[in-house]
Amino acid sequence: MIRQPKSKHIPRATIQRLATYIQVLESFARDGVEVISSNPLAEACGVNGSQVRKDLAYFGEFGIRGVGYQVTSLIAAIKSSLGVDREWRMALIGVGNLGKALLNHAEFRTRNFNIVGIFDCDPFKIGEIVHGREVHCTQDLKAIVEERGIEIGIIATPPERAQRAAQHLVDAGLTSILNFTAARVKVPEQVQLDYVDFFHHLYSLAFRHEQART
Amino acid sequence: MIRQPKSKHIPRATIQRLATYIQVLESFARDGVEVISSNPLAEACGVNGSQVRKDLAYFGEFGIRGVGYQVTSLIAAIKSSLGVDREWRMALIGVGNLGKALLNHAEFRTRNFNIVGIFDCDPFKIGEIVHGREVHCTQDLKAIVEERGIEIGIIATPPERAQRAAQHLVDAGLTSILNFTAARVKVPEQVQLDYVDFFHHLYSLAFRHEQART
Repeated sequence: MIRQPKSKHIPRATIQRLATYIQVLESFARDGVEVISSNPLAEACGVNGSQVRKDLAYFGEFGIRGVGYQVTSLIAAIKSSLGVDREWRMALIGVGNLGKALLNHAEFRTRNFNIVGIFDCDPFKIGEIVHGREVHCTQDLKAIVEERGIEIGIIATPPERAQRAAQHLVDAGLTSILNFTAARVKVPEQVQLDYVDFFHHLYSLAFRHEQART
Repeated sequence: MIRQPKSKHIPRATIQRLATYIQVLESFARDGVEVISSNPLAEACGVNGSQVRKDLAYFGEFGIRGVGYQVTSLIAAIKSSLGVDREWRMALIGVGNLGKALLNHAEFRTRNFNIVGIFDCDPFKIGEIVHGREVHCTQDLKAIVEERGIEIGIIATPPERAQRAAQHLVDAGLTSILNFTAARVKVPEQVQLDYVDFFHHLYSLAFRHEQART
């Protein structure tokens, strides 16, 4: 049973929670749980039961009253609604330490977010094979994006090269970018850009830790 | 020249930007830049020059009017102000794919955030050596946290084990936690808890990508 969203105006906070629900439900499925009611699901996600019921209601009627949700159907329905029930092909720019760690992170493949093209502007890296993939020159990005059906770009360069990497991704026609560097980059308005920056969090935690001690 | 913060009431957004400034300045330093004025620094960070000058003013007078900031002194001063000019020792719970990717991410060491204890509750993993570190039983966390002076805990377990991991970290006396899982966890009020979840961002990007196409 696959249902389409009732409405396209789903709040971003709901989408973020749906992303959590998928990951938590997949853990339950791995542990052999077949049916779950909203309260234990909510508990595992750190939200309350009524929030879960309200969020899932955006997408139609998933549950059976008094019984709960059938875990694998619910996962399939949310994934379908979010559009993540298919493969997403990604390009990675920047094959340094971080880029290599991301390439080695098996969960991207598990979740069908596949890094199918890797790029660097360092001539010493171009042509190298890293975790089974050949490093290409960033100049070839546009051709490879088209050839391989890439839809998402990942920036894992040093921060001062992030803007140039973003420009390459935009020039290649990509409109969804995930930036793992500290640098804030400028992109055209129609481009979706998100940031993941570990050190932001670590520096912030460290600072708050010091403040709390004094 | 190391200055202490003028005020302890520094807005969180400023702290987040300072974390960006450090990373961007370090890139400039690596490229041999010795002096930088606020505008090119701002440009590389994606903020405006007056914001940079305002943020840095929280920490005293870093710059020389009409000349700019001496890059290495500025890095040292911000790091000192944030309390990240020393080693931070971290414990990692969950030595799966993500945990291994984090252990292999050289930038933690470069930035003096060292993972000095790794823990898992899987008896098949305990005793294994991963990237040079021995996997310990999570039951031993408290003793090792004390012995090794650990101050930050990282959660990289499957999401359904995140709450238990958080409880172990809290019981071990840690008050700063970075959670790399999708699960929202509950901790006492005095504990600082931040989240890093790649798949939140990827699912959200994918969903917005699909919406933009239709």
